[in-house]
Amino acid sequence: MADQYARPGEDNQSTDIPVIRWEEPPEGPVLVLLDQRRLPAEEVELVCTDPSALVEAIRTLAVRGAPLLGIAGAYGVALAAVRGFDVDEAAAALAGARPTAVNLAVGVRRAQAAYRAAFAGDGDLRQAAEATLTAARALHQEDAEASARMARHGLALLDELLPGGGHRVLTHCNTGALVSGGEGTAFAVALAAHRAGRLRRLWVDETRPLLQGARLTAYEAARNGMAYTLLTDNAAGSLFAAGEVDAVLVGADRIAADGSVANKVGSYPLAVLARYHHVPFIVVAPVTTVDPGTSDGASIEVEQRPGHEVTEVTAPRVSVAGVEAGGGIPVAPLGTQAYNPAFDVTPPELVTAIVTEKGVVSPVTADALAALCDSSRQVTI
Amino acid sequence: MADQYARPGEDNQSTDIPVIRWEEPPEGPVLVLLDQRRLPAEEVELVCTDPSALVEAIRTLAVRGAPLLGIAGAYGVALAAVRGFDVDEAAAALAGARPTAVNLAVGVRRAQAAYRAAFAGDGDLRQAAEATLTAARALHQEDAEASARMARHGLALLDELLPGGGHRVLTHCNTGALVSGGEGTAFAVALAAHRAGRLRRLWVDETRPLLQGARLTAYEAARNGMAYTLLTDNAAGSLFAAGEVDAVLVGADRIAADGSVANKVGSYPLAVLARYHHVPFIVVAPVTTVDPGTSDGASIEVEQRPGHEVTEVTAPRVSVAGVEAGGGIPVAPLGTQAYNPAFDVTPPELVTAIVTEKGVVSPVTADALAALCDSSRQVTI
Repeated sequence: MADQYARPGEDNQSTDIPVIRWEEPPEGPVLVLLDQRRLPAEEVELVCTDPSALVEAIRTLAVRGAPLLGIAGAYGVALAAVRGFDVDEAAAALAGARPTAVNLAVGVRRAQAAYRAAFAGDGDLRQAAEATLTAARALHQEDAEASARMARHGLALLDELLPGGGHRVLTHCNTGALVSGGEGTAFAVALAAHRAGRLRRLWVDETRPLLQGARLTAYEAARNGMAYTLLTDNAAGSLFAAGEVDAVLVGADRIAADGSVANKVGSYPLAVLARYHHVPFIVVAPVTTVDPGTSDGASIEVEQRPGHEVTEVTAPRVSVAGVEAGGGIPVAPLGTQAYNPAFDVTPPELVTAIVTEKGVVSPVTADALAALCDSSRQVTI
Repeated sequence: MADQYARPGEDNQSTDIPVIRWEEPPEGPVLVLLDQRRLPAEEVELVCTDPSALVEAIRTLAVRGAPLLGIAGAYGVALAAVRGFDVDEAAAALAGARPTAVNLAVGVRRAQAAYRAAFAGDGDLRQAAEATLTAARALHQEDAEASARMARHGLALLDELLPGGGHRVLTHCNTGALVSGGEGTAFAVALAAHRAGRLRRLWVDETRPLLQGARLTAYEAARNGMAYTLLTDNAAGSLFAAGEVDAVLVGADRIAADGSVANKVGSYPLAVLARYHHVPFIVVAPVTTVDPGTSDGASIEVEQRPGHEVTEVTAPRVSVAGVEAGGGIPVAPLGTQAYNPAFDVTPPELVTAIVTEKGVVSPVTADALAALCDSSRQVTI
């Protein structure tokens, strides 16, 4: 069950964003999530006391973003173990909550494997639960470290591709601290450039239909004092044509063995525009995003989301002049059918580079990607 | 001054859309507009009793769309003349209400020229006013006829480019009866294909930030019983990649002498995607849209619209569960700066054909366009 839990004080802007945390109050362990549906209007936390609350939070995008989903999935398995739910059932439900996000399934499987290994050892449920939580915490910590390494590799790549500095970076969707145990993926690279004094402008696509760019990336950019400008996804073409974009930085939800990148819908049109305008299109993602079991782009299952996300405008519920506004407001005629894929697939030939915590793959080939994954598996598993 | 005037009865779906009409009630002549900001939730008319009300209606997009703006501008000059306002002052204000839309200025100038010619003849203000109104009415009628001819030429072109029939057409923004004295431009071609039984699917881009696709094109498609599907502008890339788009049909707000096309922001990215996927990108517009005084795309002044269109979600004001919702709901952090061009410019090399009421220009070259305009000027002026 999930409840509204706590609202941090007025002085939000100076606090860290509490994206996800494990807490152990007297009533029993809980997973506390920042409810990303309410941002930027409100910082409200959701408390999950059982795995099904977390499944619902994942489905409704209260928690979202590839790396964070892996962490959340692992903690969800730990929650099941610690609170005595059926661990395999919980793991299956969690892994299936969003089909395209490979990190979610990877995180779930890792915690589940820790549980099974510990339970097989001595059959002690309490110790198995403890081992599961330890695995989730380790994943959380590793993700934060991976994020820092991606930022370093990504900034080095930007500096190499754009030796003049003063980078003007276009990004899509939200890939910062809100999706990560650390500072994120693509956004972390832009943030590193900002801290190094080499980010001239962050162009933020609003990212319809759920406006993760307007609501979340703008929020993170503002909190970090970055020079950012918001635009409709439509307007990116004008920026390219005007020569105002030096590089595109996006995350990934799944990378196939051939280097095809599934990411938030709207990434592929940016890749085509970037190619047409000879601008680098750079994907930043942890190696867990690479799925060797998916051979190519055509094999990636793309989640189709409900049509009401398009036929209704989904705005955060806020009070405007004393009246509650937002939520789902119809913008199309009743009965309008919508095509609403959550992701699109960018073929490897349009991807200039894939930046991971283990290094950069460029040009993007199946062999180079496989070599990177193999080396990483030796290190981390 | 503009007032809410009349709400047609419940049986809206079976009536014609009263987009613009001149009326002469006992209180004096008025220009009545369908307030397009309220669609599709409500069909509400705006009554303009003076030119400044019309200027405001144009600026706020209560009336919009290239050909309709020309008609509205001409009627606005007639309204000034008939009601005794300063005609030249009104004409200047009307022509400047939206800088990119060349048809607006063309319509205004035509009515103004009729006024001047009649006034120069015998100095009779009443007769000059009558001549101005006659010119506006002639433009209105000509536009309806042009629309029908564009539909015929456009359908013939589609059939030629796509001999298999079963056209799947992607369109952007709104280009139907709501923008025209007739049935519109690009939409009129899709409608002709529908009536001929050769439209398999109309893909409707929602067209952020003001959602003219979701609100207006979906409304027109539904009223005409067309098979249509709405999508975020973002999702068009996935449709192209899946081979689901046979042709793109868009309108134009201004066409430079070299064939560069200024149209609703988001058109240019579609043109780039269409080229990448070898899909025809077809512009449908009356010859008045061609501006020989603008030499090329770089010379087109692109209107920058207010940032709040992006930082706030602009939904029609509707009653949701008894509470008034919609209008401007903040979706981005306070203080967020937005880049919000109304239009973008597609270079002629990405335009497969320009369809006008005088015929089709393909390939799009300055010479071919000039020849078409010259022939049309001999006929219509």
